[in-house]
Amino acid sequence: MTTSTTAHAARLAAAATATADAGIDALLLTSGADLRYLTGYAALPLERLTCLVVPATGDPVLIVPRLEHAAAIASGAGEAVKIESHEETDDAFRMVARLIADAVGRPAGTIGLADRMWAEQVLRFRDAMPQAEQVLAGVVTRRLRVRKRSDEVDALRRAGQAIDRVHQRMGEWLRPGRTEAEVGRDIADAIIAEGHETVNFVIVGSGPNGASPHHQLSERVIEQGDPVVVDIGGAMPDGYCSDCTRTYLAGGKAPSEFADYYTVLHEAQLASCASVRPGVSAESVDAAARDVIAAAGYGELFIHRTGHGIGLEEHEDPYIVSGNDTILEPGMCFSIEPGIYSPGHHGARIEDIVVVTDDGVERLDTIDRDLVVLDG
Amino acid sequence: MTTSTTAHAARLAAAATATADAGIDALLLTSGADLRYLTGYAALPLERLTCLVVPATGDPVLIVPRLEHAAAIASGAGEAVKIESHEETDDAFRMVARLIADAVGRPAGTIGLADRMWAEQVLRFRDAMPQAEQVLAGVVTRRLRVRKRSDEVDALRRAGQAIDRVHQRMGEWLRPGRTEAEVGRDIADAIIAEGHETVNFVIVGSGPNGASPHHQLSERVIEQGDPVVVDIGGAMPDGYCSDCTRTYLAGGKAPSEFADYYTVLHEAQLASCASVRPGVSAESVDAAARDVIAAAGYGELFIHRTGHGIGLEEHEDPYIVSGNDTILEPGMCFSIEPGIYSPGHHGARIEDIVVVTDDGVERLDTIDRDLVVLDG
Repeated sequence: MTTSTTAHAARLAAAATATADAGIDALLLTSGADLRYLTGYAALPLERLTCLVVPATGDPVLIVPRLEHAAAIASGAGEAVKIESHEETDDAFRMVARLIADAVGRPAGTIGLADRMWAEQVLRFRDAMPQAEQVLAGVVTRRLRVRKRSDEVDALRRAGQAIDRVHQRMGEWLRPGRTEAEVGRDIADAIIAEGHETVNFVIVGSGPNGASPHHQLSERVIEQGDPVVVDIGGAMPDGYCSDCTRTYLAGGKAPSEFADYYTVLHEAQLASCASVRPGVSAESVDAAARDVIAAAGYGELFIHRTGHGIGLEEHEDPYIVSGNDTILEPGMCFSIEPGIYSPGHHGARIEDIVVVTDDGVERLDTIDRDLVVLDG
Repeated sequence: MTTSTTAHAARLAAAATATADAGIDALLLTSGADLRYLTGYAALPLERLTCLVVPATGDPVLIVPRLEHAAAIASGAGEAVKIESHEETDDAFRMVARLIADAVGRPAGTIGLADRMWAEQVLRFRDAMPQAEQVLAGVVTRRLRVRKRSDEVDALRRAGQAIDRVHQRMGEWLRPGRTEAEVGRDIADAIIAEGHETVNFVIVGSGPNGASPHHQLSERVIEQGDPVVVDIGGAMPDGYCSDCTRTYLAGGKAPSEFADYYTVLHEAQLASCASVRPGVSAESVDAAARDVIAAAGYGELFIHRTGHGIGLEEHEDPYIVSGNDTILEPGMCFSIEPGIYSPGHHGARIEDIVVVTDDGVERLDTIDRDLVVLDG
């Protein structure tokens, strides 16, 4: 844990104020990034209810199953919130309803549910508080989490450096004759060895598999001259995530169509990064990449948005996509990852995490963006 | 994939029939085990909507984001259901509402949501179908998935054998002077090496950490004479999960209190397994373990239920817990994992996966349940 108890207390106070401002009586935050952000507790996603109750007025309380009590205490969450256990046979949902009623002096009128709370919990809370309107807690927590403070940017920088080190070792593993799955296993080991606690995903898209943006791994044997998209990420022990894509050439000579569009892609990624500064919109950063690719005639082959925010989750606000008029502010962190995909043939993507600074942008992934030819 | 297209088509037909019988107009199954069970598609949990629509009448349709279309096709799901893509700017939730209305001939009256659908999707579906009552799809799918057919039992048997092989190699890694985290990393590598596709969890609870049932790993250095709870599991390439716990002694001599209660625990686990057969209740299997432990005076130290179902999820129906009067039927698969925990000192747990057979029980984890003393 790199975040102090004081920081958690301050975040909880800010969340309560924002909850009141939003006209919500309480946030109900089950296992997930909001809970970890506010308390430091990385709760397991169990069928038994774990729920941080953040009332608009009064003290927050963390409800945990009895058998998670020791783990909750060990997380340090108890220094920022009161922890209450429930037994296997308690109705934890009614406990929460009573807690909110006690805190705000009446049954809840509006409750904010963790954006990724499970439907089975949503419906149990609906039954326990039938009078309450259910809205998403994200309207409060996303606004808090989207602007990273310096300790969080430092954490994301460490994550970026760790995943960059993995990319720099790619020549140890990626070569013709090996399967994507074999290469992927070595990469996963290296993600851990370079300092991550968990491997979040490993994509090795060789040849035609590179044309599917979310292809993961397969038994395909990598061939000489294959373009290979390698998109990898993990979470560090403090919970902050990495995510970086580079495209490699597995020896030999690149197909000419590929070489052409890689150059365009590289320019697009640079242009998108260069457009980032406080005061511009998220969608303008998307457009900066898209315009370069479209002008070169590849617009139809760039089939996804340019990026996503990152922090305690791999994908969070702000999304760098057409239609998102969010104005960028210092501390916002997100990926810039345009791609060009030629179905049935190959694809390419270049991705860095960046942070909006007071007057521009800083890349948190700092390795070269040129096509890397691995001549093993 | 070990499950054939024919099996998926049969499961989808059974789901539609059960949906109609439950008075539900359609199931809406986002990324997760229900979707995989019915189509073979192990969809990524993305913020963009992936949703299998299973109407009570008419054909099922799988809605996927455009950039997941290739992955959905590659999964083979297209052989059992029609796949429709949506673009970044489409309202996929309204697409689903229209699909249901077209299938049943009127706006949906009742819809069944995947039990672990995210709240953000639950509320979007509420807005897209304000007239519809939302219930849980689990009332239909849990009933289908709880009774495993022989191909699924075979898959769980292979998973059990794989995790048993990891336990049998424990002496390679677990010894005094190493940290739990070091041992855990080796175990995770072995979980993959022995045939799993993913590591779901690795618990190495040494000495006092063994008293916290869901402790994972720490930097604690294992000491000579420590009891160590090792609870590990993963998912095989076909999605079926393993989960097996053994308690080890890291050399030396066991503390006398520990030796006493381990003997009791072993008897309790045997008694619980022996009580399993068609026609008895889930809670009676819990009681069979609990009675032995309580009679020996350790009842207060057995602080969780006896077990959980397992299949495409680590935890699913049936839960082996007081209050669950589900009658066991052939094909039900679950863990039997009583534990005894002495806070501040140590703990022990013994866990096997079992399947209810036509006339009794079969263990899918078959390694010895005696305390294993590792004299490295």
